[in-house]
Amino acid sequence: MIKAKIISIGDELLIGNTINTNSAWISKKLTELGITVTSSVMIPDDENRIIHSLKNSNEEIIITTGGLGPTKDDITKRVLSKYFDSELVHDNNQLERIRNYFDKKNREFKDIHKDQALRPDVSFSLNNNVGTAPGIYTEFNNRIFFTLPGVPSEMKDIFSDQMNNLIKKFIVNNSNDFYIYETIYTTGLPESELFEKIEELDDDYENVKFAYLPSASGVKIRLGILNSTISNKPALFEEVKDKIIEEIGNFIIEEQSDLIEATISLLKQKNLTISVAESCTGGGLGKAFTDLPGSSDYFEGGIISYSNNAKVKLLNVNKHILEKYGAVSKQTAEEMAVNCREIFDTDYSISMTGIAGPDGGSEEKPVGTIYVCIYNGEVAEVKNLNLSSTNRDSNREKTIEYSISMLYRILKNKYK
Amino acid sequence: MIKAKIISIGDELLIGNTINTNSAWISKKLTELGITVTSSVMIPDDENRIIHSLKNSNEEIIITTGGLGPTKDDITKRVLSKYFDSELVHDNNQLERIRNYFDKKNREFKDIHKDQALRPDVSFSLNNNVGTAPGIYTEFNNRIFFTLPGVPSEMKDIFSDQMNNLIKKFIVNNSNDFYIYETIYTTGLPESELFEKIEELDDDYENVKFAYLPSASGVKIRLGILNSTISNKPALFEEVKDKIIEEIGNFIIEEQSDLIEATISLLKQKNLTISVAESCTGGGLGKAFTDLPGSSDYFEGGIISYSNNAKVKLLNVNKHILEKYGAVSKQTAEEMAVNCREIFDTDYSISMTGIAGPDGGSEEKPVGTIYVCIYNGEVAEVKNLNLSSTNRDSNREKTIEYSISMLYRILKNKYK
Repeated sequence: MIKAKIISIGDELLIGNTINTNSAWISKKLTELGITVTSSVMIPDDENRIIHSLKNSNEEIIITTGGLGPTKDDITKRVLSKYFDSELVHDNNQLERIRNYFDKKNREFKDIHKDQALRPDVSFSLNNNVGTAPGIYTEFNNRIFFTLPGVPSEMKDIFSDQMNNLIKKFIVNNSNDFYIYETIYTTGLPESELFEKIEELDDDYENVKFAYLPSASGVKIRLGILNSTISNKPALFEEVKDKIIEEIGNFIIEEQSDLIEATISLLKQKNLTISVAESCTGGGLGKAFTDLPGSSDYFEGGIISYSNNAKVKLLNVNKHILEKYGAVSKQTAEEMAVNCREIFDTDYSISMTGIAGPDGGSEEKPVGTIYVCIYNGEVAEVKNLNLSSTNRDSNREKTIEYSISMLYRILKNKYK
Repeated sequence: MIKAKIISIGDELLIGNTINTNSAWISKKLTELGITVTSSVMIPDDENRIIHSLKNSNEEIIITTGGLGPTKDDITKRVLSKYFDSELVHDNNQLERIRNYFDKKNREFKDIHKDQALRPDVSFSLNNNVGTAPGIYTEFNNRIFFTLPGVPSEMKDIFSDQMNNLIKKFIVNNSNDFYIYETIYTTGLPESELFEKIEELDDDYENVKFAYLPSASGVKIRLGILNSTISNKPALFEEVKDKIIEEIGNFIIEEQSDLIEATISLLKQKNLTISVAESCTGGGLGKAFTDLPGSSDYFEGGIISYSNNAKVKLLNVNKHILEKYGAVSKQTAEEMAVNCREIFDTDYSISMTGIAGPDGGSEEKPVGTIYVCIYNGEVAEVKNLNLSSTNRDSNREKTIEYSISMLYRILKNKYK
């Protein structure tokens, strides 16, 4: 077992101004790589606390986030350099990169920004493609240290772009007892059906360990190859992946990318537009589609028809359908999607109506009865999610994730 | 300085399935009480790791969350009891409370649930008003330990209902060098104006230390009284608070409650309804208004008019206004709010239109130019937030928080 410790550095975490989302994201990625995160700590920008936290650890991989900014309270690099018994030096490549970054953004490059190119002389810099502060990679006392910026987008960029491979290399070099893992993200296929379709492959490749990890938006397939068994692991991974794609290609989300990003990328590629008609999610799906910049390319808008009145007046939902089947029904969901698409004149529309909870359910329609419908002008595909929980937050989140995964699958199916 | 350590327990935190929001919430509350959180750690449901984390701490206050459920992997209480060198015993009051809780919910009370009433025999139970697992309070080796459930709503309930006072008592008893703090939440008043209005009070009460802590939704006023100076602190706090209310009552949010909760509570009290017209926030405000159960009492719905087309077609925004002033303008925001209120037939409507970033700004309208408008049928109040950041997420969040704080102030002003 290779162990990792995450150290999140920043006063803002300990006065509660910032929720630490980095730790969960890194943990998820490390888990996919087969690494066990044994602890994750948040400490202030304080030299003694950082040193203590580095010393008080026996994990093979140490990851710090935060404290790489250009201001005085950002001390992580200085403290790390001390811990490695090394000197801070300017990295000329990074200086160049940062200067270019400022030029591109038409921002003035000041002296204070030069120090962002500093690294301990025993370390290597890791390029940051979306911000200024580079990451730092250090091998020290048979352990590896990653020093990452605290800004989530920058941390994620460095992780996906460079750190991922450095960790794989470390696992390969470290011991023959370890598994190398690759994860394939799927959506829209229940675990049992997925298993049926993959079962034979699973049997055929005895050197590859298949694991199925369910999440809200779909099941992840984790492939593991024992370090000692195969020399050319990348080739074997490719072979197995190709076979999996043959079986369930339409249900696979691009590797390493988020579901929403993969879906948006497809919408953009195919020049498609969407609109949303939300009831129980109250605007959350619209928010998800507009979280990323450039969303006006594909997102026209939406109607939050929370009350029945709004459903009738704004979405033209047929009153008789509402009365006969109720607001939470297949029929109402269909009406909502069909009319929404017409109103916004988009290629696709998504509607959702349901009982998010914690109360408001009945025997016939318990909490968690939530209908999602996607309409493309020809076919209205409806699904009752039948969520078993009464947790409002989680039900709303799952509905949003599911509707995006449903759209992704429909698009993938059509434009494969 | 009184120090606290937060220990969040749960495997789900270390495989990245759950983002730890509890730690930030607790940290914020402790900071308001004048306590310094020196570290916050996440560890798995593992006996050795829990014990190690308890031993490896010198803080006066230790708070654990998680691992109080009825299943086998929930081991926190057992481990804690061992650490305190005590026995687990059933708390009869809690048994009774939990049995009632199940009765009320029409759920079967099973043997497995009885163990939720266990506590170390040296400890006291803390009532949980919104769930089954009670919290636990222990004094041990001159330190105090709080053991809380990991479910955020339950943790918050126990904190606000009982823990808050226990901590204050601990501070009072612990030393005369400490300050006791009370926090007053304000919204809608810039720090400078707030300071002007409060300055005199600040001078008058030399035994009360005033601090001003800005946040997205407003400024918090933290009042501190040195433990040794005054014997009847609650009375002095009341006196100063009354004076502050005299000065800026309309800008004060009910103590201890969140801005959105305070706003919703006012809407419900006065039987008011609202609707939203969102552009750059893409549905986030609607989501915020429907995060809590029972939102159909006051929330009718909304229109996400992301494109100009949608603004014209769905919100009847005058084309000439759009052309003359642009989509991001005071005039368009007004049109959106006024028409939204009419369409949904609500008491109030909120509109927002702006450039969330990171790109898309111009010299005249830089990123962060965001207009919020609230209309009550008579007056349309508009505000350009002029946010100085190009961070899309933070700009969208601030816009939502600000619009809620604006509504709160308007309601408070009208219904004082």
